[in-house]
Amino acid sequence: MNVPTPDRSLIVAAILLGLLAVVYPAATAYAAGAGEHGDPVAPVLVALVLIGIGAALGGRMMRAIGQPAVLGELLVGMVVANVAYYFREPVITVLREGATMSNVIRMALEQNLSLPEAARHVLPPGEHTELLASILGGPSGAMAVNVFDFIDLLARIAVIVLLFLVGLETSVHEMRKVGLPAFLVAVVGVVLPFLLGLFSMWLVMPEAPVQKDIFIGAILTATSVGITARVFRDLRQGQRDEAKIILGAAVIDDVLGLIILAVVSALVVSGSVSVGVVATISAKAVLFLVGSIGIGVWITPPLVKRMARLEIDNVKLLFGLGLAFLFSWLANWMGLATIVGAFAAGLVLEELFLDELKGHSLRDMLSPIESLVVPVFFVLMGMQVKLEAFADWRVIGIAGVLTVAAVVGKVAAGYAVSRRLDRLSIGIGMMPRGEVGLIFASIGKGLGVVNDAVFSAVVIMVMLTTLLTPPLLKITLARSAKA
Amino acid sequence: MNVPTPDRSLIVAAILLGLLAVVYPAATAYAAGAGEHGDPVAPVLVALVLIGIGAALGGRMMRAIGQPAVLGELLVGMVVANVAYYFREPVITVLREGATMSNVIRMALEQNLSLPEAARHVLPPGEHTELLASILGGPSGAMAVNVFDFIDLLARIAVIVLLFLVGLETSVHEMRKVGLPAFLVAVVGVVLPFLLGLFSMWLVMPEAPVQKDIFIGAILTATSVGITARVFRDLRQGQRDEAKIILGAAVIDDVLGLIILAVVSALVVSGSVSVGVVATISAKAVLFLVGSIGIGVWITPPLVKRMARLEIDNVKLLFGLGLAFLFSWLANWMGLATIVGAFAAGLVLEELFLDELKGHSLRDMLSPIESLVVPVFFVLMGMQVKLEAFADWRVIGIAGVLTVAAVVGKVAAGYAVSRRLDRLSIGIGMMPRGEVGLIFASIGKGLGVVNDAVFSAVVIMVMLTTLLTPPLLKITLARSAKA
Repeated sequence: MNVPTPDRSLIVAAILLGLLAVVYPAATAYAAGAGEHGDPVAPVLVALVLIGIGAALGGRMMRAIGQPAVLGELLVGMVVANVAYYFREPVITVLREGATMSNVIRMALEQNLSLPEAARHVLPPGEHTELLASILGGPSGAMAVNVFDFIDLLARIAVIVLLFLVGLETSVHEMRKVGLPAFLVAVVGVVLPFLLGLFSMWLVMPEAPVQKDIFIGAILTATSVGITARVFRDLRQGQRDEAKIILGAAVIDDVLGLIILAVVSALVVSGSVSVGVVATISAKAVLFLVGSIGIGVWITPPLVKRMARLEIDNVKLLFGLGLAFLFSWLANWMGLATIVGAFAAGLVLEELFLDELKGHSLRDMLSPIESLVVPVFFVLMGMQVKLEAFADWRVIGIAGVLTVAAVVGKVAAGYAVSRRLDRLSIGIGMMPRGEVGLIFASIGKGLGVVNDAVFSAVVIMVMLTTLLTPPLLKITLARSAKA
Repeated sequence: MNVPTPDRSLIVAAILLGLLAVVYPAATAYAAGAGEHGDPVAPVLVALVLIGIGAALGGRMMRAIGQPAVLGELLVGMVVANVAYYFREPVITVLREGATMSNVIRMALEQNLSLPEAARHVLPPGEHTELLASILGGPSGAMAVNVFDFIDLLARIAVIVLLFLVGLETSVHEMRKVGLPAFLVAVVGVVLPFLLGLFSMWLVMPEAPVQKDIFIGAILTATSVGITARVFRDLRQGQRDEAKIILGAAVIDDVLGLIILAVVSALVVSGSVSVGVVATISAKAVLFLVGSIGIGVWITPPLVKRMARLEIDNVKLLFGLGLAFLFSWLANWMGLATIVGAFAAGLVLEELFLDELKGHSLRDMLSPIESLVVPVFFVLMGMQVKLEAFADWRVIGIAGVLTVAAVVGKVAAGYAVSRRLDRLSIGIGMMPRGEVGLIFASIGKGLGVVNDAVFSAVVIMVMLTTLLTPPLLKITLARSAKA
């Protein structure tokens, strides 16, 4: 990484980071050996410190070369995880499995399997699976699972906090203003990648059944708004119309994605789709969005007034985060992504608290929490970039085709809006597939329509669209800000 | 609970709490049923919101009747958990098992047992164990374990944050000033409860082997400083000499407790004790305290200066919490309690940050985090107060004797200091056994010297010393403040 002004402190800090990376495996091994008497929180603390130092240094380095901090967090996660994996460090090897590890743990607990057995059920047979199984069955296995569970849940809470903050800085009124362009971007951004995915899979694997092509097309429709939201925050451009259109389109995308997933899954499983199921899902999703925002705007002001009389310390923070958590839970209950709920909660609250002036502002109080937890999500996401996935030429071929389809489809969607806007930035902002694409892919794996080569290719496509977005968005936003 | 000024908002809030308690089981059941597609963070979010609302209301009610907020958090946890247990709510039934559940989960993961099998291994046979086993093996089992793991680790981090804050507000210089009285309180507070425990066990169960009496005596020597530290914070009296003596004595107690535990365990297992082992443990503990504080005070100022040049956002917060987490981990590595490390980190940092003035003060930034996470620890502690433990007369008898020994031993220790100080408050402040006593007891259970009746009695003793401390300390501190 080329830092223009070589700074002694940076070097000192990097050495510290290197030292920690060496100390960590030894420390965790000892902690596992200490057994009964040790506090299970100890390895979690080390993991949190490592992530915190890594995120701070990575973010700082990127800012030094004019890039958004989030790119540094992703890269630090990627580098540390791949180096640690090379040395077979147990905790990080488990952490970089991400959603797959969640499935392994759930399967082990629900079906009364041992962890290694569950790993062999969930993952494809091979050297990597055996390594994981031996780690999970070894002396550090339970500890690594414990650390994974905590960091994974903390990262999920982190995106909720991030999208809640983004929602706080956006108003319902503003969102309604960008309603039409956001809708156009969402629809084009779903239809085009779907068709391109279908077509390119037919090109690459003409022998595959059409249901498989349809599922891959469906995977390409996903949008993960976390990365884009962070880039806009890092560059302090969150108030631009482009940012709001992307957010609105991402929310609509989530609803459309839900419907597509249901339709495609039904097609794969039973060969047919019932109109009733699609109508029910659509109705539930729309009901949640309209209902939560409508009821929220109507019920929050009197509730806040009552709260003010209670004189509870930091009531704003408790109420704000409480609402964000409840809305996230409600969204999940309705089958939507939790972050859609968090964003809706932020939309509802926005300026209501400005009336009741006691204490610091909600945003000020959330700032330290944001700087502590949000990087956890992005470092963990970077950790899941597996460089060994790039070792198979066939996989790279499929991945290349999928990535082109994924990028072209979403970038073109940006051009669905008026010429006055920065259409290229909107398109690039819609690019990252993130965890949403991975969730789609793992469901496809469960249904048997996504094999290991295609799954790896999807993972590469998700990684590329995720890693390319911050630097590209930075360039296009700087250009349009000048114009 | 008699609130002097019946407040409409309080009633509204209480209704909200009741509603949540009803909604929660249904919601978690649905979440478990939703399976693969649901986000595993959803039930965690509901649990956090419930704990947050409960803590805020409980704390508010106690302040309304002039009691420290921590008592409200303990009572809300106790009431909610026992009501939910009565209705067999799965998540809370799992949460209230506390350290026992950690053992069950670890055993299941490490020894490749199913969760119900592990529960039957760890817990005594009976109706309660079968209920737990059926919950753990049921559809919500994996979800409940997931929620438990997260909340449990978050609570452990919460005490670390609390003790770090307490350390921040205390200086090394001040601690050295109270060194002698703290040492006297610690030594008397270890020797006296040990002898009283030994004697009273001999009175109650003269047929038991002497090793058992010795182990019970050892359990009574523990001090859990979390409750007392919170009470002093709630009443804004943390700067009194009494508070510092209690903190110092608690730290010394932790070291002494470590040695006692090693000696007693060795006595039980092998019938003899090697001087070498005791010397090694003592040396390690002293080395940690002297070393960490010494090196910390020496190395932190230059490190902070370098950090300042890095220009990382919220660097104070990252550095402060990072140091607290690292010291906690180090303490655990040395066999001490994590909170001893957190307190030492706070001692080291104290005023150093006042030089480097950029950004808000560390304490200001920690305040929202404190108000969000610290109550989690105390609500969870309250949840572990099992009212059904009071159903057996024999257990109550043993518990009564143990509680008297525990209270008298520690209160008398307060009288080891000068007459000018509030000796009764110091003694009462040393009373709570908290999780330290429970950890001792569960080790004893593992060694086979603590049977179920005695374990239940120890749990009651821990609960009573913990619940009695806040109101008693409030009375004695108010009296001595007037004098």
